[in-house]
Amino acid sequence: MITISILGSGKVAYHLVLNILEQDNLHLQQIYARNIHEIDNLVNADRIVTNINDLKPADVFFIAVSDDAIGKVSKSICLKNQLIVHVSGTISIEAIQNSPRKGVFYMLQTFSKDRKVDFSQIPFCIEATTTEDFSLLEQIALCFSEKVYKINSEQRKAIHLAAVFVNNFTNHMYILGEEICKENKVPFDILKPLIAETANKINSLSPKNAQTGPAIRNDQTTIDKHLDLLKNKNYKDIYRIITKSIQNIN
Amino acid sequence: MITISILGSGKVAYHLVLNILEQDNLHLQQIYARNIHEIDNLVNADRIVTNINDLKPADVFFIAVSDDAIGKVSKSICLKNQLIVHVSGTISIEAIQNSPRKGVFYMLQTFSKDRKVDFSQIPFCIEATTTEDFSLLEQIALCFSEKVYKINSEQRKAIHLAAVFVNNFTNHMYILGEEICKENKVPFDILKPLIAETANKINSLSPKNAQTGPAIRNDQTTIDKHLDLLKNKNYKDIYRIITKSIQNIN
Repeated sequence: MITISILGSGKVAYHLVLNILEQDNLHLQQIYARNIHEIDNLVNADRIVTNINDLKPADVFFIAVSDDAIGKVSKSICLKNQLIVHVSGTISIEAIQNSPRKGVFYMLQTFSKDRKVDFSQIPFCIEATTTEDFSLLEQIALCFSEKVYKINSEQRKAIHLAAVFVNNFTNHMYILGEEICKENKVPFDILKPLIAETANKINSLSPKNAQTGPAIRNDQTTIDKHLDLLKNKNYKDIYRIITKSIQNIN
Repeated sequence: MITISILGSGKVAYHLVLNILEQDNLHLQQIYARNIHEIDNLVNADRIVTNINDLKPADVFFIAVSDDAIGKVSKSICLKNQLIVHVSGTISIEAIQNSPRKGVFYMLQTFSKDRKVDFSQIPFCIEATTTEDFSLLEQIALCFSEKVYKINSEQRKAIHLAAVFVNNFTNHMYILGEEICKENKVPFDILKPLIAETANKINSLSPKNAQTGPAIRNDQTTIDKHLDLLKNKNYKDIYRIITKSIQNIN
């Protein structure tokens, strides 16, 4: 049995707690949270601490707080020689203070409180200062998923950047699609099969081979019509710059 | 039995032919194609014509050629009083020449020759100059899918524009994600669960509620780190402009 304590009560902490509780080989020992109400529906009050000094030793401490608080929170853990691990995509392993045993446990997925995430489909990107601690984190990740990767801090930062493109920016494309539908009294649902196929397609074709549309076939007539339809200057700029980028790459 | 003839041999014509052949209630009468080799593995040579004057009357003619050839090809059909239908997202129904019976049969999906498309998941956007012809096109679409929409030319042009954002531009985000992975010796497969979840998420949350990442939480530290990691000026511009747009909308 691996004992785990979590520091934090945001979206990632919430999903991590939820999924640790489902695992027979993992024991959720304590949660340190300032906003107890975010998390107190998941565990009994006796496992929640609001004073960091009330944390007991555990096999691993997961710090799931905002990026800029990782250093400070890790510094506040007074227990000696514990494995302290953060879950951020962008922060170096060296941000962890006051312990020689550092690790990163980055779950490459998008988390929203209102949607359950299938942990078996998450790629876990793991890093640790010692081989033993790496093995321990790997063992925890393997409880959830087969997709476990050894990823160093530089690679992880690049993956996080790539994730911004394929998730955050893609989702923004959905928002723009929804806006255009609304303006023209068309239900957004009409775009959903296309959105699903766009994502599925890259399982059988590389993104480069999957590219279609006016930009890639240099159909300037359609491009001009689209720019004419777009009234919002910002959307016009997005259209122009991505069109140019598609034409540059291929 | 509805008799259909197809003019064209590109990607859309190819998938249309393939799917008509699977339907018991539809009879594929003839295909007019300049590039026979694209399509001659699907039907016997006696159903392919290379001279447009060899077309016999049919219940409907689908013109699946490039947008700028629609007018010219429709003009070349010498048969009188036939229902002539194009399949373009951007061209007005009025582009069809020489017949009072005009229609549009726009399949809102992304087509590549190397990937089979599930027609039961395609939204069909239909328009026709007469009620009878609309019903006929609706009947054909319902053979394939339950998702049949009455969409006028203005709405269709907007849908096509929205489709460019959610498909073409989204796919370009995948290409950029893949490039960043390659540069950092990380397998692109690591992003695939995130790509799948990004698309699935909007079935339970609106795109606005699904938005996550540094832009929406105004995390300027991470935004600056990402811009610093991006060496390509064009990608930097894309990052900046979409980040700004996310911050403007929400």
